[in-house]
Amino acid sequence: MYINHISSYIPSTKIPNDYFENLNGLSDEWILERTGITERRKAGQLENTQTMGVEAVKRGLEDLPYHPDEIDLIVGGTYTPYDTIFTLGHAIQKYLNKSDIPVLSISTACSTFINAVEVVEGYFALNKASKALVVLSEHNTLYSKDEDQKAGHLWGDGAAAVFISKEQLKADDLKIKQVITGGAGNVGKASESVFLRPAHEGFEMPHGRDVFVNACQYMSGITQRILDENNYKIGDVNYLIPHQANLRITKKVMENLNVDAGRALSNIQYLGNTGCAGAAIAMDENKSKFNSGDVIVVTVFGGGYSYGAMLVEC
Amino acid sequence: MYINHISSYIPSTKIPNDYFENLNGLSDEWILERTGITERRKAGQLENTQTMGVEAVKRGLEDLPYHPDEIDLIVGGTYTPYDTIFTLGHAIQKYLNKSDIPVLSISTACSTFINAVEVVEGYFALNKASKALVVLSEHNTLYSKDEDQKAGHLWGDGAAAVFISKEQLKADDLKIKQVITGGAGNVGKASESVFLRPAHEGFEMPHGRDVFVNACQYMSGITQRILDENNYKIGDVNYLIPHQANLRITKKVMENLNVDAGRALSNIQYLGNTGCAGAAIAMDENKSKFNSGDVIVVTVFGGGYSYGAMLVEC
Repeated sequence: MYINHISSYIPSTKIPNDYFENLNGLSDEWILERTGITERRKAGQLENTQTMGVEAVKRGLEDLPYHPDEIDLIVGGTYTPYDTIFTLGHAIQKYLNKSDIPVLSISTACSTFINAVEVVEGYFALNKASKALVVLSEHNTLYSKDEDQKAGHLWGDGAAAVFISKEQLKADDLKIKQVITGGAGNVGKASESVFLRPAHEGFEMPHGRDVFVNACQYMSGITQRILDENNYKIGDVNYLIPHQANLRITKKVMENLNVDAGRALSNIQYLGNTGCAGAAIAMDENKSKFNSGDVIVVTVFGGGYSYGAMLVEC
Repeated sequence: MYINHISSYIPSTKIPNDYFENLNGLSDEWILERTGITERRKAGQLENTQTMGVEAVKRGLEDLPYHPDEIDLIVGGTYTPYDTIFTLGHAIQKYLNKSDIPVLSISTACSTFINAVEVVEGYFALNKASKALVVLSEHNTLYSKDEDQKAGHLWGDGAAAVFISKEQLKADDLKIKQVITGGAGNVGKASESVFLRPAHEGFEMPHGRDVFVNACQYMSGITQRILDENNYKIGDVNYLIPHQANLRITKKVMENLNVDAGRALSNIQYLGNTGCAGAAIAMDENKSKFNSGDVIVVTVFGGGYSYGAMLVEC
């Protein structure tokens, strides 16, 4: 499988840390020290996961190395849905105006990017698809409460579109060597540490410490495993793209793996935690840096709990 | 692929049509004539998609022809989520206490049963799983408004668990011959005819007529297609299990296909529309009827729009 193209969309409204100081007393310094975040983006009044997903796709179509009519599978990924019936995947289908192809939307919280790629891998293995579009979109600020001192300052909105096919189409396509996913819903405080119950308590993270500890452990562990299974050493990795949850988690993962923190690609500083879209947005933002032969690991962890890794070669 | 086992759970509280006469003036006669429904079930105060899903799984484990530890893939399906982060799939994983296997939750509205089976088919093709558990669960009454004259009387709650493996394990296992799915998000009023926008308007069906017309057309069409692709004639089909949306839709599908209406398996009369769980519950309820050599077609259509069919042989 190859990533032939990737694109993203970030809403224009910036919310700096100062906003929270006025709202709930969390200072810029306090937020920065604990999360690495200085500002995040907030979707506009008329935006939602679907409009942001469509925007990301629209940008991708500009340089897509094949006609969009060739797309034969759409997988939407979000845990902040606008509509759970006419889902993100269906909204993308409507935008592309392409009937009668498999379309589904999934959620495994912040790990959804990699789970979605694994679903695509399955459709490719079945020969039921050959050009897939994975759209990751989160509207965290719709469900989070700004005044929430535990987590309100973490969340940002954004979307990414990842165009994956069976074939290499351009010299700079990214080859997906392996994908691993795993649920860990029976581990730690998975059921209660971070949740989004749309009809009940909403979006909260009462046990951030449990998320932190497990995120560090799983993102390091799965990175090491995918490298081992492909006979790579950690020193071979040019870039690590972790789930963009918290800069301290990223630093701890790099420390666990004994890698220079500079090899991690991060956008949480200016986008906040954009959920399942974060790592894909980082891949889009940095794609011009990637050189032939580079080894990239995407490693993600989500509430639920759920984790995954993808080994990519340029 | 084989369905080795299937089980279901229905909450105990019955809501008869009379309830709506008192509430919004829709009479028993009016509801029965237009939908075929006489009563539906409503989840209890402490129940939700996850508790109902777990109950369905618990019942299935009683007679499961292998140890539950052998389950190596969990796919949850719901459009009425209790939690979009610790998802239905993760709740099932926690109940089974089985770590480090792929777990995901999907929504393609009422067609999710068949989309989930297709995701399983992909994992099997990749040799990333060999014993999958698909759990379909809907808590429609959580999101619907009882007083809604257009749709409040349609919805019921319930769950089903479908245990699928690569191998035939018992003489009466159901062989899945083919699975087809398709999105139709760009067709008709797909984006607005029926929706569940948790943070906005909630669950509504303002254009039931468009749903009705497309459901009849797609469920008939995909049934004919899956039979054609397997060299079966409609007369070869012993049972048709349609999405349980409305008894008039089922009758129209049978009429379109020119099949005796008695061959359709229905539970909407006493369960209402239980979303993506309905057809799987019907399969569980009727499994003792199936005889060796029987040909069964499951045909579904969901808001979004989304459709699918599965050809099964006993």
